[in-house]
Amino acid sequence: MPPILIKSVCKGHDLVDVFINGRFFEKIAKEISLEDVPLNTKVIDGANKTIISPFYNAHTHAAMTLLRGYADDMGLFKWLSEYIWPLESKITPEDVYWGSRLAILEMIKSGTVFFADMYWNREETIRAVIEMGVRATIGVTFAENLMSKESIEKNFDFLEQNVACHERIQLAVMPHSIYTVGDALWKRCAETAQRLGLILHTHIAETAEEVENCIKKTGKTPVQYLDSLGVLDNNVVLAHAIHLTSEDIAILEKRKVTLVHNPASNMKLSSGKMNISALMKAGIPIALGTDGASSNNNLDMGEEMKLAALLAKLEGNPELLNAEEAFQMATVRGAKAYRVNAGEIKEGMLADALLIDLNNERLIPNHHFLSNWVYSADARSIDKVICHGKTIMENGAVENESEILENVKKFAMKK
Amino acid sequence: MPPILIKSVCKGHDLVDVFINGRFFEKIAKEISLEDVPLNTKVIDGANKTIISPFYNAHTHAAMTLLRGYADDMGLFKWLSEYIWPLESKITPEDVYWGSRLAILEMIKSGTVFFADMYWNREETIRAVIEMGVRATIGVTFAENLMSKESIEKNFDFLEQNVACHERIQLAVMPHSIYTVGDALWKRCAETAQRLGLILHTHIAETAEEVENCIKKTGKTPVQYLDSLGVLDNNVVLAHAIHLTSEDIAILEKRKVTLVHNPASNMKLSSGKMNISALMKAGIPIALGTDGASSNNNLDMGEEMKLAALLAKLEGNPELLNAEEAFQMATVRGAKAYRVNAGEIKEGMLADALLIDLNNERLIPNHHFLSNWVYSADARSIDKVICHGKTIMENGAVENESEILENVKKFAMKK
Repeated sequence: MPPILIKSVCKGHDLVDVFINGRFFEKIAKEISLEDVPLNTKVIDGANKTIISPFYNAHTHAAMTLLRGYADDMGLFKWLSEYIWPLESKITPEDVYWGSRLAILEMIKSGTVFFADMYWNREETIRAVIEMGVRATIGVTFAENLMSKESIEKNFDFLEQNVACHERIQLAVMPHSIYTVGDALWKRCAETAQRLGLILHTHIAETAEEVENCIKKTGKTPVQYLDSLGVLDNNVVLAHAIHLTSEDIAILEKRKVTLVHNPASNMKLSSGKMNISALMKAGIPIALGTDGASSNNNLDMGEEMKLAALLAKLEGNPELLNAEEAFQMATVRGAKAYRVNAGEIKEGMLADALLIDLNNERLIPNHHFLSNWVYSADARSIDKVICHGKTIMENGAVENESEILENVKKFAMKK
Repeated sequence: MPPILIKSVCKGHDLVDVFINGRFFEKIAKEISLEDVPLNTKVIDGANKTIISPFYNAHTHAAMTLLRGYADDMGLFKWLSEYIWPLESKITPEDVYWGSRLAILEMIKSGTVFFADMYWNREETIRAVIEMGVRATIGVTFAENLMSKESIEKNFDFLEQNVACHERIQLAVMPHSIYTVGDALWKRCAETAQRLGLILHTHIAETAEEVENCIKKTGKTPVQYLDSLGVLDNNVVLAHAIHLTSEDIAILEKRKVTLVHNPASNMKLSSGKMNISALMKAGIPIALGTDGASSNNNLDMGEEMKLAALLAKLEGNPELLNAEEAFQMATVRGAKAYRVNAGEIKEGMLADALLIDLNNERLIPNHHFLSNWVYSADARSIDKVICHGKTIMENGAVENESEILENVKKFAMKK
């Protein structure tokens, strides 16, 4: 992989040269001479471009792109039990592989280089991630309603044997939810994650119904219930987190838990909306995720970022979650949640970057670039996507695109 | 302008041939032979494409693209009085011309062929619309706080003299709001619109503050106040319409008024959200608009359509405003609101169309095209834009793009 030198590119209000060597940003300076970089360095002209961090998608189910548009305009429980789970039972490992590749293709094209994935047949998703050059935290998923005891044991074996999985991939322990995993398994998941130094990720307080049922059964809210089991700690990342009490928020803050905001999915399934003002006031870190393509129905983090900024303002304060904060939620917050040393264009950090074309009509006039990026741009302005020091999209094209699309179409035909 | 024959294109679940002659869809049938069309007909291959209606943007301020990103993350009144109005006072007619062209360029690229515009220097916007091949309803705008008596008289003269303006343009009477136009002028605007057979368009009930002030001053809500002046009729189109009582809704229904939903702007300025379930239950027609680029901050009706569908579901019912309804709101409802015989791909209607590339990754798999279009697609899948029987975008390119961008940049430099 040759080093990359990007000449005269906008970074905030400055024009800089950016030198990427191996997987890291090695030097960012006003002027880096061609004489100071190796002979095989690839030089990129940064004129009329801005360099910014790509997106880090903190909660998704990649292969569910296969179910895009299959069932819409209905609530979470009906959607899951009558449509999604029955169709998913017919999905083969090969389908998951092509579904994951489609998801990654879509993410790269809209500027995302990392995703945290909760799904089945993780070996297939891992294969897709390795081949396509992005990063991921891949879940080993637990759901007692859908799994045999044997598969649960296999999950734990897989975790023990594959902790150091790949330089762009880490595993995480992902019990699906409090309503699909029981006390004993929750404790074992938490203990395993702690012992192996892994993130534990789950859905929490997504619907009012989930909270009511939990209180009926355990006398506790979902957050209090998980806390009583000893699950909550600074390695825990919780998606949705909509229906929280002020007690819940105090617990999350104390345990240093990270949350993931999923505005599109939460709206589409009528689940509700995250209380951004209360959570930001409590200083709880919030990352951003698209959720799966069947409840969104795309994986476009740029769209999700704008939606997050707009939805927060519905709380009545137009200053809440401004462009800068929404951008951080979609970038560095996601990287930090999963302990990836990325999400900012900085020396010593992993070399992930987008080059944005400032001649795109949505970025003109350029009174305030970040405002244009959050509130106006779409994927058409993304000129290049760089991940782990390698260019993975150029001129809107990703390797082997048409092969991916053809194979996914075959799945849709079979259904 | 040569006729167009589109061969073998998807239309809903069918494959059809579409023949466009002059400004209309002349024939849509399973097979149209080349022998049955004029020799100079341009034949387009519709393979792997779907033909659908483009968007009709029912409320915007086109030239405000010039102020994109200039002032964000604040409420309506502060935004208008401290930032927007002061900067607008420096905008020249030439700026309005280039700002309108930028807006139209952006709209064409995201599949919009019509917009209803409320702004100043309408001659410049009219010039831009004519040159760029789209349709528009162009407002003659009234705001007593910003205009001399002389300019108000000039407005009325302009209306009287330019009723039949251009085959793709109609004028409308556009008093800005109930807080910038007084009783007498409101009555005169309404009378003029009725007499000349024009649409009357205004902002209404956009903020809680507007409603409170109106009640304090007149003892009536804004809707009741306009009704008491005799303004409301079936030629009236009202934007925003957020803070409505059930009495207001009954009046709007009785007077056969059309509303325009502006979800992005309403969220961004913390104005609130339209009560979609109550308005749909009352059978009130609702079109969709982006509002101006400085409170959105783009003019992408596809994005707005998805946002409308998601926001409705926050009312607690995931079935509210399904994909089909959201699509109609963004297309035929807007055309009907402004009495344009368009918004559907049908024989005898004006030939406006989008050709959508079914090989775009966001439209795969294709379990349900309209769901993919509303919830997943972005502008990258738009292959061609046809307006008034003429192709105005092809392969992502619009005529004279770079000239427009260069001229708008000059405005931003001057500021």
